[in-house]
Amino acid sequence: MGSRREFIEKLTVSAVSLPILCGPTSLFAACEQPYNSPILRVAIMGLGGYGTRVAKAMLDCKRAKLVGVISGTPSKITKWQSEYNIPEKNCYNYENFDRLKDNPDIDAVYIITPNGLHCEQAIRVAKAGKHVICEKPMAINAEEGERMVKACREANVKLLVGYRMHFEPKTVEVIRMRKAGEFGQPKFFQGQSGFVIGNPNQWRLNKKLSGGGAMMDIGIYSINGARYMLGEEPIWVTAQETKTDPVKFKEGIDETIQFQMGFPSGAVASCLSTYAMRHLDRFFMTGDEGWMEMKPSSGYGPIKGRTHKGELEQPHITHQTLQMDGMSRIIFEGLEPIAPIDGEEGLKDLKIIDAIFLAAKTGKKVKL
Amino acid sequence: MGSRREFIEKLTVSAVSLPILCGPTSLFAACEQPYNSPILRVAIMGLGGYGTRVAKAMLDCKRAKLVGVISGTPSKITKWQSEYNIPEKNCYNYENFDRLKDNPDIDAVYIITPNGLHCEQAIRVAKAGKHVICEKPMAINAEEGERMVKACREANVKLLVGYRMHFEPKTVEVIRMRKAGEFGQPKFFQGQSGFVIGNPNQWRLNKKLSGGGAMMDIGIYSINGARYMLGEEPIWVTAQETKTDPVKFKEGIDETIQFQMGFPSGAVASCLSTYAMRHLDRFFMTGDEGWMEMKPSSGYGPIKGRTHKGELEQPHITHQTLQMDGMSRIIFEGLEPIAPIDGEEGLKDLKIIDAIFLAAKTGKKVKL
Repeated sequence: MGSRREFIEKLTVSAVSLPILCGPTSLFAACEQPYNSPILRVAIMGLGGYGTRVAKAMLDCKRAKLVGVISGTPSKITKWQSEYNIPEKNCYNYENFDRLKDNPDIDAVYIITPNGLHCEQAIRVAKAGKHVICEKPMAINAEEGERMVKACREANVKLLVGYRMHFEPKTVEVIRMRKAGEFGQPKFFQGQSGFVIGNPNQWRLNKKLSGGGAMMDIGIYSINGARYMLGEEPIWVTAQETKTDPVKFKEGIDETIQFQMGFPSGAVASCLSTYAMRHLDRFFMTGDEGWMEMKPSSGYGPIKGRTHKGELEQPHITHQTLQMDGMSRIIFEGLEPIAPIDGEEGLKDLKIIDAIFLAAKTGKKVKL
Repeated sequence: MGSRREFIEKLTVSAVSLPILCGPTSLFAACEQPYNSPILRVAIMGLGGYGTRVAKAMLDCKRAKLVGVISGTPSKITKWQSEYNIPEKNCYNYENFDRLKDNPDIDAVYIITPNGLHCEQAIRVAKAGKHVICEKPMAINAEEGERMVKACREANVKLLVGYRMHFEPKTVEVIRMRKAGEFGQPKFFQGQSGFVIGNPNQWRLNKKLSGGGAMMDIGIYSINGARYMLGEEPIWVTAQETKTDPVKFKEGIDETIQFQMGFPSGAVASCLSTYAMRHLDRFFMTGDEGWMEMKPSSGYGPIKGRTHKGELEQPHITHQTLQMDGMSRIIFEGLEPIAPIDGEEGLKDLKIIDAIFLAAKTGKKVKL
């Protein structure tokens, strides 16, 4: 963890310039001090590829700990129990996880299941009195998102969305620069989100489970990025869909969508969401007084970026480690991340996705 | 001209890898040999800023020479006569330039006047029996463009459009790579064309003279770039216009337009045309097997670019020098540039501009 330590040391010297979490003190400076708040005890629901990635990243967390699992596959549970030292009493399946309400040793559940399952699962977790961390997209449409927000509010639990980029140091820095006016008035955001998806039988290409194709999975990064880099909410969207492989990308599974957004200031965004192109993953923003470019902009590996001031030199730290430590502080200390990650935030993206799908279908500009 | 000589020497060694003009021999290798074809004797019509730039660039031409001027300002004519050693008999004004037909010492007229004047001027030049070189945009709409193509055909003169990027060495290289299949199947082109325009009283912001705003002037680079980088003709366009300053950008003068194009293969393009944003001028293209990025992509200064194979290292040579030497060979030797620059090509861009304006106005997808 040399690079992390280095980053932390940098922060303790210059906390103001790199506020991973906005608040009275820098997150990482505080991390090095004795903890005043509890460790966030997390159960992961859905032990697939990304769940595994999160679990491994959490081994380096200082404020969060994997303590439970929820899965429909007993063999996976057994494997995870031994790998992460998880007691039997913290293991659940999809039938019995409502019993979480009787388990005082779990604070939050991180839902990392197919998108189409998030809503009902999140509501059940909320009803069990546990904080909900939900992987993005929060749900498959705004109607579901609203039910989730309502359920968590009624249960008085937090609802946080797995927007890991909001904790990634270079991303945090460009958002800080934007907020500080270092780009001047933002004018234009461009997002290229996409890759060539593999196995045609995966759940991401099954409408019932995924709720959509590339847009739900990867296009959402451009939507979210446009919003946090321009610092405004869009007032209209237009979209154009292209499908070259209707066998792989069935009805309701978008292969490629170009979409545009307009903002109250007159700023505009131009984005690409695709499951059929290589060499993408780039954000660009230009303002009256400066610009930023990130490529890759939202992959797991080191983000690279530069602005009119030069290369972004913040070190790479595993995003999910930062995210889970950060979420712990949000939950226990009420700190705010550099840009929101709560249910209302997830809902905003879902409303935009609904509008993009409508715009692509009708060919008309959709007002938000 | 050290860098030019260097480039030429490189070409004589490796003519195949850098064919500025496609044909039986490399343009520049041939340039070093005794000329077998005449020097193109050019009169410039319109002695403004860009005309001056072209005149200076032509001082380095080996196959083209500035020999005449057409201007409505006698003092400019006098100045140019002394600067470029232009005889009185090769000087015209806008009333009498039809008399070019009686002047055997001028082969071609390069029209560098406001867009809205191109059509009638080009037709008059053609009727005078001179080859027409017309600065882009060729005209202000396709109807005008068609009349120009027809007039030049009937007069049996060439009609060439000032697409200088088609002669720029790095641009030529990426087009060559695309044609050779080095990017695989092209999938996506992205063009950012724009800058913040200054003086609000210039002809470029006068609808009658310009025919439009940013699109006519700078957006056309993205249109043309999309076509030569994808190697296909678009079958549809969509467009969204944004205007933040209706005083500076009056009715019919577009400030910012985002536009998208779809191509028969399923490739798509996403472009920005603006007179109100800084830090742009970038082309990006990705294919199945590679990508290219150019930034700046269409300014006068050195173009910079890279592909999946590395930096583009072709030297900078004044674009207008290459263009005028190249046009000489097109006219006298029938050589073809790497991508077309004739009237039919200019007309294709005008048809797309017409469609973009219609799409922006109606909010509907326009088929081509």
